Amino acid sequence: MTRQPLGVAVIGAGMVGRAHANAYRNAATVYELGLPAPRLVAVADTHEPFATDVAARYGFERTEADWRAVIDAPDVDAVTVAVANNLHREIVEAALAAGKHVLCEKPLAPSLADAQAMVDAAAATDRVAAVGFTFRRSPAINAIREQIRTGGLGRVRHIVANYFTDYGVDPQRPMSWRYRGGPGSGVLADIGSHLVDLAEFLCGPTTGVQGASMSTLITSRPKPLGVAVGHAGGVELSDEHAPVENEDICTFTTTYAGGTLGTFSLSRVAFGHANTLRLELFCEHGTATFDLTRPGEFGIIDGTPGPSVNGARQVLVGPWHPYVARGLPMDFPTVGHGQNDFFVFQARAFLDQIAGADHLPPCPDLAHGLHNLRVLDAVVSATDKPVQL
Amino acid sequence: MTRQPLGVAVIGAGMVGRAHANAYRNAATVYELGLPAPRLVAVADTHEPFATDVAARYGFERTEADWRAVIDAPDVDAVTVAVANNLHREIVEAALAAGKHVLCEKPLAPSLADAQAMVDAAAATDRVAAVGFTFRRSPAINAIREQIRTGGLGRVRHIVANYFTDYGVDPQRPMSWRYRGGPGSGVLADIGSHLVDLAEFLCGPTTGVQGASMSTLITSRPKPLGVAVGHAGGVELSDEHAPVENEDICTFTTTYAGGTLGTFSLSRVAFGHANTLRLELFCEHGTATFDLTRPGEFGIIDGTPGPSVNGARQVLVGPWHPYVARGLPMDFPTVGHGQNDFFVFQARAFLDQIAGADHLPPCPDLAHGLHNLRVLDAVVSATDKPVQL
Amino acid sequence: MTRQPLGVAVIGAGMVGRAHANAYRNAATVYELGLPAPRLVAVADTHEPFATDVAARYGFERTEADWRAVIDAPDVDAVTVAVANNLHREIVEAALAAGKHVLCEKPLAPSLADAQAMVDAAAATDRVAAVGFTFRRSPAINAIREQIRTGGLGRVRHIVANYFTDYGVDPQRPMSWRYRGGPGSGVLADIGSHLVDLAEFLCGPTTGVQGASMSTLITSRPKPLGVAVGHAGGVELSDEHAPVENEDICTFTTTYAGGTLGTFSLSRVAFGHANTLRLELFCEHGTATFDLTRPGEFGIIDGTPGPSVNGARQVLVGPWHPYVARGLPMDFPTVGHGQNDFFVFQARAFLDQIAGADHLPPCPDLAHGLHNLRVLDAVVSATDKPVQL
Amino acid sequence: MTRQPLGVAVIGAGMVGRAHANAYRNAATVYELGLPAPRLVAVADTHEPFATDVAARYGFERTEADWRAVIDAPDVDAVTVAVANNLHREIVEAALAAGKHVLCEKPLAPSLADAQAMVDAAAATDRVAAVGFTFRRSPAINAIREQIRTGGLGRVRHIVANYFTDYGVDPQRPMSWRYRGGPGSGVLADIGSHLVDLAEFLCGPTTGVQGASMSTLITSRPKPLGVAVGHAGGVELSDEHAPVENEDICTFTTTYAGGTLGTFSLSRVAFGHANTLRLELFCEHGTATFDLTRPGEFGIIDGTPGPSVNGARQVLVGPWHPYVARGLPMDFPTVGHGQNDFFVFQARAFLDQIAGADHLPPCPDLAHGLHNLRVLDAVVSATDKPVQL
Ligand SMILES: NC(=O)C1=CN([C@@H]2O[C@H](COP(=O)(O)OP(=O)(O)OC[C@H]3O[C@@H](n4cnc5c(N)ncnc54)[C@H](O)[C@@H]3O)[C@@H](O)[C@H]2O)C=CC1
Ligand SMILES: NC(=O)C1=CN([C@@H]2O[C@H](COP(=O)(O)OP(=O)(O)OC[C@H]3O[C@@H](n4cnc5c(N)ncnc54)[C@H](O)[C@@H]3O)[C@@H](O)[C@H]2O)C=CC1
Ligand SMILES: NC(=O)C1=CN([C@@H]2O[C@H](COP(=O)(O)OP(=O)(O)OC[C@H]3O[C@@H](n4cnc5c(N)ncnc54)[C@H](O)[C@@H]3O)[C@@H](O)[C@H]2O)C=CC1
Ligand SMILES: NC(=O)C1=CN([C@@H]2O[C@H](COP(=O)(O)OP(=O)(O)OC[C@H]3O[C@@H](n4cnc5c(N)ncnc54)[C@H](O)[C@@H]3O)[C@@H](O)[C@H]2O)C=CC1
Repeated sequence: MTRQPLGVAVIGAGMVGRAHANAYRNAATVYELGLPAPRLVAVADTHEPFATDVAARYGFERTEADWRAVIDAPDVDAVTVAVANNLHREIVEAALAAGKHVLCEKPLAPSLADAQAMVDAAAATDRVAAVGFTFRRSPAINAIREQIRTGGLGRVRHIVANYFTDYGVDPQRPMSWRYRGGPGSGVLADIGSHLVDLAEFLCGPTTGVQGASMSTLITSRPKPLGVAVGHAGGVELSDEHAPVENEDICTFTTTYAGGTLGTFSLSRVAFGHANTLRLELFCEHGTATFDLTRPGEFGIIDGTPGPSVNGARQVLVGPWHPYVARGLPMDFPTVGHGQNDFFVFQARAFLDQIAGADHLPPCPDLAHGLHNLRVLDAVVSATDKPVQL
Repeated sequence: MTRQPLGVAVIGAGMVGRAHANAYRNAATVYELGLPAPRLVAVADTHEPFATDVAARYGFERTEADWRAVIDAPDVDAVTVAVANNLHREIVEAALAAGKHVLCEKPLAPSLADAQAMVDAAAATDRVAAVGFTFRRSPAINAIREQIRTGGLGRVRHIVANYFTDYGVDPQRPMSWRYRGGPGSGVLADIGSHLVDLAEFLCGPTTGVQGASMSTLITSRPKPLGVAVGHAGGVELSDEHAPVENEDICTFTTTYAGGTLGTFSLSRVAFGHANTLRLELFCEHGTATFDLTRPGEFGIIDGTPGPSVNGARQVLVGPWHPYVARGLPMDFPTVGHGQNDFFVFQARAFLDQIAGADHLPPCPDLAHGLHNLRVLDAVVSATDKPVQL
Repeated sequence: MTRQPLGVAVIGAGMVGRAHANAYRNAATVYELGLPAPRLVAVADTHEPFATDVAARYGFERTEADWRAVIDAPDVDAVTVAVANNLHREIVEAALAAGKHVLCEKPLAPSLADAQAMVDAAAATDRVAAVGFTFRRSPAINAIREQIRTGGLGRVRHIVANYFTDYGVDPQRPMSWRYRGGPGSGVLADIGSHLVDLAEFLCGPTTGVQGASMSTLITSRPKPLGVAVGHAGGVELSDEHAPVENEDICTFTTTYAGGTLGTFSLSRVAFGHANTLRLELFCEHGTATFDLTRPGEFGIIDGTPGPSVNGARQVLVGPWHPYVARGLPMDFPTVGHGQNDFFVFQARAFLDQIAGADHLPPCPDLAHGLHNLRVLDAVVSATDKPVQL
Repeated sequence: MTRQPLGVAVIGAGMVGRAHANAYRNAATVYELGLPAPRLVAVADTHEPFATDVAARYGFERTEADWRAVIDAPDVDAVTVAVANNLHREIVEAALAAGKHVLCEKPLAPSLADAQAMVDAAAATDRVAAVGFTFRRSPAINAIREQIRTGGLGRVRHIVANYFTDYGVDPQRPMSWRYRGGPGSGVLADIGSHLVDLAEFLCGPTTGVQGASMSTLITSRPKPLGVAVGHAGGVELSDEHAPVENEDICTFTTTYAGGTLGTFSLSRVAFGHANTLRLELFCEHGTATFDLTRPGEFGIIDGTPGPSVNGARQVLVGPWHPYVARGLPMDFPTVGHGQNDFFVFQARAFLDQIAGADHLPPCPDLAHGLHNLRVLDAVVSATDKPVQL
């Protein structure tokens, strides 16, 4: 049996660390009553002002500048790792070694070797070791998945998956960890990891990758003077520039079992698209769409209505869809929600798992995080085979 | 100086009471740090299971079946009144008499006389007495308001305001307090109160009302067997029916200072519209739109782009708009939010007001709630002047 | 028996006259084969360049500066009257007296008395005398009407009808006939006539009008130096201004048999809305929408799809909808069409009627044009009953 | 000098032949006056009822069952070839040899060798020999192109191009020429040819193709009993089935000079998508979109509006955009148009070219048609290089 209330901590109080901290705070307010609210123990960040703000805001007891203090703390049972990708391995391994449950952000690691080591570490413990594919908690995406599974839509024949962002479109946005690393560590790792995972969530395992292209449009960026967080607007810039090491745009095609095809487009320089994750699924009996800019809805066309009144319909998610009933305080249809809510649902699933409850689908494990990296790696391998005209 | 942390309570644990309870829980997590998180003291509901669920879920210390116990409790400093409209007066008067701060749901009361009495009661104390026009906390609506105020849009010439809901479209939905009371106590009071207030938030005080029409389409409803909450799906029904006493649909036109016109349409039987609050504002220098089914965006057309590239643009709210920065955990653009967030922002404004801080616009006071009822009353008066054909 | 091929003429070669000329040219290319293509005899306009352009373009044999020459011509059997409203009566009466069939533009006349005289003149002949309510030929609007009639949607409970245009939003647009005449001769007569007719097309006869408001925002306009056509961009302006005599904005509510309510908003100063005619119909079993900016589609929500996949669907009109099959050269779904096509369909109906065929619904007669004016007149009467606040 | 009026003929009176016949009828009604209306001489189709209907409808003087009669006719100066792709070469060669001007439908031919022969044949004459890339006449697409060219959008960095149709989604749709031929002769040739051409219209010549995948989902189809036209609904079916020889879905990525990337998705089994051609262009200074289901508009985001009011704007095309002014009878903004209008504009360009006028961009020549096939051929070559997972 797991000690309850569990002590939880967040390592990394940057853009996404905030969402995790809030998620722990509210995880016990959703769904089945009875899960004891976790003790909000610690927030760690090398940049103390971030840790302090997040801890004060969401009610965590203390802050740490060094993540090792969190790992060593006996009152911490579970940690979220929400720092740059190249720090994931060391922290996750230490946490598991210290007997903590771990929720690590995606992509699992910068290399297959790192990820494999993390999987091995997890295999050596009985702790929950999960990776944060948060979009799996989207009510709308789950509603589409239900329609695939139950036959309303039937098997997917073709998935067109786009993730367009503009966090890199301004050449004056500072250098950060997101722009460092070899090919594939750019937009592919950052947001492609999500998209590849969602496609598998809906279509099953990827069986092949073809014809990837990558392009870097802004080849150097100013170094920041202070600490840049998230997509790093607002920070002061130095006169010095550093080279951008990875791709701004990436496009490729995929296959899945049964002849399903996939078409992927990723960008971090898509003017005017702050956060446009779009899925279009052509299935045996219908078509479905999702667009993250309108998180509370999805589109569907099937053969139900008569031909003279058939068309693409926009479904506003409500309590009859996954995750909504009691996932939001007022939970009547169209009340609205967003990505921060997905983190609450994910935190709840993670805590339930630790507690041995199975009300929600469990978080993907590290092996799944490794598998995700394998697909990304295949995309990189698929870049060198163009047919010249 | 006000005691901090403040003790707060919610009276009424129905549909909207849940949103208030969650809002108190999270009010100190948004915006400026430093406001002590309120003590979550009590939830009161005559139907105990509701009180118990809400208290357990959001972390309130105790429940009460009788609201008077809350009013009498010395550890409660502020209460939200979230029960049927005809109970507002008695509870608010008692709360103010007991020295509590009060946030009362809209519409303030079932009659002008009741509302006047409440205003008088508030005038006799130094407590904060506010009315819950929650939509005033919508980031998108505030962004539009900014454009009116700063001249980007300029003065409103015509506002077209619709609130279409379908909570009454199914004749098998049970009888409840929402269907009782004379003309004007139906859809006009329930959601028209919001719309009339929003129009004033954007256009200034109403100066005239014309040509109202009302229609009741479902003239009786089954009595529920258990306790029906909110829009009351799911409850068991008896064989007996009770007459619906008020309007399902209401439409009217208004005027504002400076010749601005308003056109209003309200419905609780709008098939397929769970919660469609829509505003369209035609202004001197442009046009703006808002649609609650997409709470995180608004539309605007102005003369900025050249003629060959001009069109209606859809703006996704982000940290440069009111209420967003630090109002959401991840607060980058398009992260998504909804009505439950508006309640958090409102709770924060209410608590700030009590604490003497003025970071946010204060909640409208009871006098404003009375004024709102006066407009609704004018709508009722304007029903008897049709021109026959 | 009517002579075939019929000789046709268009009086008024302004904005809408062009559409009529093109419509006659192509009327025999749509639907049933066998109608002889009409002889394109004459185009008349006091401003000769317009007549010459239209005749040359669409293949009419001759032009006239004086409409009387058309009326007197023995080779003309049918005329379209497409000039300013205050000229309709004189021309229609003369045409009927000369034994011509007449298609007169809406609104029928500037006054009820004029319209009554025209109806009387028509009653004295056996000629076809029709009024040009062109939107009755919209495939999408007819598709909605079918759903009302056949019970898919059922009886309309509430119609929200908007017509937003911006032809008057620029104060530098010149004075023209559209800005002259008393209250009701402005946006109400110009585009309100269409909207009032469409509402009746869908809901049956208007039974009452309430609470109309009108507002004139641009109170004078520069006189044009040359001849201004249509909405008159591009023409040179004099230094002199003339007062605008009628309303820029008009809003009112209506009733129909069986308790159906209507809400109307009209504007010619709606920034950014060139031509936005929108209908929203709340019916017993569903909701339907139409938006002229997307003429080839309509929206519908009904109960056909299961609750977890229901939502507003956007139907792209195709050959299974009214007017499309053989109404367009390529007529597969989504091929696209617009208002000019409605004029072709209308011309075909008018010519069929003259030929004694009844494949299409006939054009409304002058008595219907008079009835339409009666509703507009009731709107004007309904302006004087506001409830003051 | 070319004889005027020119005699024109259409070979193939199927789905698209109708659009060409109508286009010749109306080509002289658009733009500059002065082009003599062509003589509408002949329509040829092996299936006589189609020829007869089209000739009677659009006013052609005679019909032919054998296309050779058209080629031999001295009163025919220009022919459109609108039959199945594998007939293009023979007819075009014969027409050119007989001294006719030719407008041949896309894709130019079933093989590079055929296309090369046609190009050679054209090079040997001074006749206009053009290929029908009709979408180049879309006002909206040209408006986007203007923004690329003039720097409003700047250079394209990434084009995402989709063409989703459903003409093959129903397994009961009969076998036809569209389902015969090797890999690449299916959806790639049929609609991919358009999309590849449009991408080049906007981004310049394709420089590489990668990672194509194709999939055939419906592997056999019933043979029709009668003559199937276009996408062939409605025809009676035999009990026999024939194998489908080519692809239903195709996806691939491309490159263009300067590092521009392209992502393509094509389908003829996209449930509910009759005709969805969509372009999304990410450029240096902005983003643009086009969707054929709404032919009269395009989307754009650039930096013109201030940040707090910026968003994707939907531009309704009007007379200030290419092809609209005098391209439609009423040509004020939002009047609506569609694909049939593109054919009229194309016919006008073709006739102008023959007449030696250059008001409009000329039609692409056969060499361009050959180039288009080369890109399609590269797509086929790019199918054999997947990276296995
Ligand atoms: N699931 C999702 O939707 C999202 C996941 N992510 C993932 O979350 C992770 C973090 O991303 P962001 O929050 O955007 O990054 P960020 O750059 O905003 O934040 C990282 C934080 O880590 C801190 N940090 C750096 N080194 C540290 C150390 N040694 N110990 C403790 N703290 C340290 C930094 O000071 C910074 O505050 C990444 O793996 C990213 O891929 C990011 C955004 C969304
Ligand atoms: N600001 C907003 O957006 C909204 C405001 N409202 C307003 O909130 C109020 C409540 O509405 P809903 O929550 O929808 O109603 P509801 O019917 O869902 O909930 C009312 C609750 O009050 C309880 N109750 C009844 N009598 C009581 C008493 N004497 N003492 C304590 N509890 C009692 C009931 O058991 C029920 O749980 C109304 O004034 C309504 O107009 C409602 C919805 C949204
Ligand atoms: N059904 C529909 O959708 C529409 C109907 N209309 C109606 O059509 C009519 C004309 O409107 P527009 O074309 O917009 O007006 P317009 O001002 O563009 O054109 C009127 C034309 O009449 C000519 N004219 C003036 N006096 C004349 C005379 N005595 N004899 C011959 N020609 C004369 C003018 O020179 C001008 O060319 C109006 O009744 C209007 O309400 C207008 C637009 C759309
Ligand atoms: N530009 C565009 O947007 C479009 C272009 N197309 C192209 O147009 C061409 C025709 O396509 P559809 O009209 O859809 O085909 P279809 O199958 O509808 O029509 C072809 C017609 O050719 C006739 N035909 C067959 N053999 C003939 C012969 N030997 N002589 C004379 N007529 C003969 C058939 O009876 C049939 O009526 C194709 O090349 C296609 O790729 C098709 C659709 C749209």
